[in-house]
Amino acid sequence: MTRLLVEQKVLSENQRIAAELREQFRQNSVFCLNLVSSPGSGKTSLLERTLEAFPDHTRVAVLTGDVQTENDARRLSRFGFPVRQITTGGTCHLDARMVEKHLADWSLADLDMLLIENVGNLVCPSSYDLGEHAKVVLLSVTEGEDKPLKYPSIFVKSELMVLNKLDLLPYVPFSVERARENARRVHPGIEIIEISCITGEGLDHWLDWLRSNWRRNFATSSAYAHKETE
Amino acid sequence: MTRLLVEQKVLSENQRIAAELREQFRQNSVFCLNLVSSPGSGKTSLLERTLEAFPDHTRVAVLTGDVQTENDARRLSRFGFPVRQITTGGTCHLDARMVEKHLADWSLADLDMLLIENVGNLVCPSSYDLGEHAKVVLLSVTEGEDKPLKYPSIFVKSELMVLNKLDLLPYVPFSVERARENARRVHPGIEIIEISCITGEGLDHWLDWLRSNWRRNFATSSAYAHKETE
Repeated sequence: MTRLLVEQKVLSENQRIAAELREQFRQNSVFCLNLVSSPGSGKTSLLERTLEAFPDHTRVAVLTGDVQTENDARRLSRFGFPVRQITTGGTCHLDARMVEKHLADWSLADLDMLLIENVGNLVCPSSYDLGEHAKVVLLSVTEGEDKPLKYPSIFVKSELMVLNKLDLLPYVPFSVERARENARRVHPGIEIIEISCITGEGLDHWLDWLRSNWRRNFATSSAYAHKETE
Repeated sequence: MTRLLVEQKVLSENQRIAAELREQFRQNSVFCLNLVSSPGSGKTSLLERTLEAFPDHTRVAVLTGDVQTENDARRLSRFGFPVRQITTGGTCHLDARMVEKHLADWSLADLDMLLIENVGNLVCPSSYDLGEHAKVVLLSVTEGEDKPLKYPSIFVKSELMVLNKLDLLPYVPFSVERARENARRVHPGIEIIEISCITGEGLDHWLDWLRSNWRRNFATSSAYAHKETE
């Protein structure tokens, strides 16, 4: 490795690009979410269920990050919305420059929502702002209810915790109550939604959350809010 | 953040300390493993089952890493062996200096085996040598069989993949065959053991692996091999 990486400079450079992205999202009324979690918590499955639920004319696009493979982009592109893979090639998180680069030839004016699936990692993505309106952290019931205490930063920075794989609750030693308590201990204001991407349980709450936060961010300009009333 | 971190310097400094640790382990005939995985794959549970299976006089110690909390050290100390928590306070991996520091007042001459549980992270720990004889990567069947392809580096650097949570196989869409194929595609020589820490299935294979690798490393000096024949 020959590249010198000065952490402070990298983070402040990231902040600068993230601020530019945030301004572009604002100007174009694009609601942007940054989905974070451990590997295998179900970010891609949640995106599958989400895209599946959207009407065909929804102006949504997805950027999906992984260290290697284009698997997730393949899984997600079958719903007909624009999907692009960001392969980091070893880097443990997405940064704002990667997002900027992969948005390059997409017109933000044609979008109402951008969903970004981060690299599966409960630590590093918490340090990299992507210009998003909110981070959403997924936690699967198979991972144990202690994760918010062990990896507090990412729960502190997320607006919403989506507790996934409810369908496996009968088979794992996991207390939903304790998981909620732990999440609220590190982030008292965090919202919590419980879902299963397999049975569909709770997905209506997730879609409601998406809709109302989208509206809240773009009360007057949202094409989505307009479409809803058609 | 005021600390400047030059990645290249950090990694070569880590290599230097790791080499010193490796030499100390060799001189004292201490067999050292570095357990890595996603958060919640079952590293601590595997260590619980492992310590439980060891005779009281086994000269084993555990270092267990987490970003926050001393939970794992508490869980593991009830077996009566020396256990120490390394709390990284935000850092996404263990490095050789942390190991060196936390070993400081332990006499390696009194140990035959050191088990190091890394921070739950499938990316960053692969870059940090801790002076171990081998990395062991855990993959839980709830995470999906694509993980070796998506996070190849850590599978390439591990001698053994422990496929955990076999008890959940009936309830998740997971192909053991495909997981094995994917692991061998990125690391043809990787050994694979399938276990469940809940039912105990496969744990005898894991303990056999531990025993034979320990022996292989210290064919003549291992106190463990001696004890076995008592």
